[in-house]
Amino acid sequence: MTLPVGILLDLAGTFVFGISGAMLAVRRGLDVFGIAALAVAAALAGGMIRDMLLGAEPVAAFAQPLYLWAALAAAGLVFFAHRALERLANPVMLLDALGLGLFAVAGCRKALQFGLDPLPAILLGVLTAVGGGAVRDLLVTEVPRVLREEVYALAALVGAAIVVIGDRLSLPEIWVLPVGVLSAFLLRVLSVRRGWQAPKAPGSGSPD
Amino acid sequence: MTLPVGILLDLAGTFVFGISGAMLAVRRGLDVFGIAALAVAAALAGGMIRDMLLGAEPVAAFAQPLYLWAALAAAGLVFFAHRALERLANPVMLLDALGLGLFAVAGCRKALQFGLDPLPAILLGVLTAVGGGAVRDLLVTEVPRVLREEVYALAALVGAAIVVIGDRLSLPEIWVLPVGVLSAFLLRVLSVRRGWQAPKAPGSGSPD
Amino acid sequence: MTLPVGILLDLAGTFVFGISGAMLAVRRGLDVFGIAALAVAAALAGGMIRDMLLGAEPVAAFAQPLYLWAALAAAGLVFFAHRALERLANPVMLLDALGLGLFAVAGCRKALQFGLDPLPAILLGVLTAVGGGAVRDLLVTEVPRVLREEVYALAALVGAAIVVIGDRLSLPEIWVLPVGVLSAFLLRVLSVRRGWQAPKAPGSGSPD
Repeated sequence: MTLPVGILLDLAGTFVFGISGAMLAVRRGLDVFGIAALAVAAALAGGMIRDMLLGAEPVAAFAQPLYLWAALAAAGLVFFAHRALERLANPVMLLDALGLGLFAVAGCRKALQFGLDPLPAILLGVLTAVGGGAVRDLLVTEVPRVLREEVYALAALVGAAIVVIGDRLSLPEIWVLPVGVLSAFLLRVLSVRRGWQAPKAPGSGSPD
Repeated sequence: MTLPVGILLDLAGTFVFGISGAMLAVRRGLDVFGIAALAVAAALAGGMIRDMLLGAEPVAAFAQPLYLWAALAAAGLVFFAHRALERLANPVMLLDALGLGLFAVAGCRKALQFGLDPLPAILLGVLTAVGGGAVRDLLVTEVPRVLREEVYALAALVGAAIVVIGDRLSLPEIWVLPVGVLSAFLLRVLSVRRGWQAPKAPGSGSPD
Repeated sequence: MTLPVGILLDLAGTFVFGISGAMLAVRRGLDVFGIAALAVAAALAGGMIRDMLLGAEPVAAFAQPLYLWAALAAAGLVFFAHRALERLANPVMLLDALGLGLFAVAGCRKALQFGLDPLPAILLGVLTAVGGGAVRDLLVTEVPRVLREEVYALAALVGAAIVVIGDRLSLPEIWVLPVGVLSAFLLRVLSVRRGWQAPKAPGSGSPD
């Protein structure tokens, strides 16, 4: 039975992305409903987009109430403890990186279960991973982090690609999934810490 | 036969949200197609999102042409009569509040019909209610009203929660639905008139 | 057998919209992943929205890997040849106009195949045509071109309406589809070259 692994990955990603959304809301001075809204958007939008694109409806975020509770729990935690969370080093970045890995792996895995080819499955993994954060940022009219920050989509892509390779080689999921999550997480965190940049088109303008 | 009630709620919400979208377009100086586009987006996006998340496709807004006509009628009315509409006190706010209540109730009701649990059904009602307005605002790159204004999502939540409670207690819809719509409408209007605010996280920044 | 025509229209639109997305990314100074992301968004979002609204899932962009390759090929071409492409007269505008016509026709045609009525089918054609560009622009927090520029949605609408009329009159697709694409393309290009404007609501403000 493979379902619980998918739900577990999803729930963990939901919680950490929920925290990232709620903390952005606190920083922007939004009220308790804005905090809940950004937590829910960041936590659930990626998976909702994934399920709508696959035709897996009603989407998991509604079919399984645990997701919603996880997002709201993240909002509640941030509401009361955001000052403590802020004191941790770049906590939003770290949680975002973890959610990125968890959702890339979960999204790609579900895409393979729905019979998608490797390339679309990897893209859907990336979309699941970056979708929630993109909706979160767009809701406060910021250019999504995935477009502003180097090696963000790449990290998700590596995590998803590991799932596809593991599936092709019939490797056991118990190893493949954690390796995929960790690879995406580490690549993302290292790229931030070291200031790695992806190449730009030769002769293109500077970011604005 | 319960279908007509759902369509009626949807059509009324569609028309009033269509007016709110068209009036925003006029205020931003958009042309006749921009007016139609924002009317359609404000009027139909919430229900489209609801139906895509539930798997009720083709979405009602396309399966039943009346919705589209209602949105276009709203755009036409605003195109010719926007100066008269503006003279009414805060007409966009009042219509928006009414659409909020209508869509929260209609969305939650449809979610229950699709077998969703109470909490997801309430969230889907809220999402139906705030989705069209959020898309409307995002299209002109404004932070959605649901994040900027206090007691907006809460009003939708109360309307949706009344539907869930009525469903649990098997109360007749002929009473439950209007009470849900009116509660959301009144809570929203009163909160604007009285300047009610939802609490912010202790020690959080001010809105920007 | 009618499927190949739909795929051909879609692939051509995908490639040219992909170029428009990638060139916007280059102009905004985004890195190679940002270029791929905007190419994929501009190329595939319109068709994804169409398929999610119709219930045609998994969406064509994932069920058929060719779409993704077309979008990525557009991104690769722009990455290496964007300076040559920029020297062509308004190349993004021309490609955008062509993609607009291709997607309006393809979207409307698919909507009719799913049994939609003429008016919803035309709207879905328009939405397919303007959806990718709208997502592309929103991702870099610009007001979508469809709202800023005159005779943009109208061009898509004319292309889609020709498909509906041809369908009603049972005219052969081999004539109707190219006429629809060309009409939308020419109307869009002429409106830009001649500075045609759609009427605004009497007494409305100026654009901002």
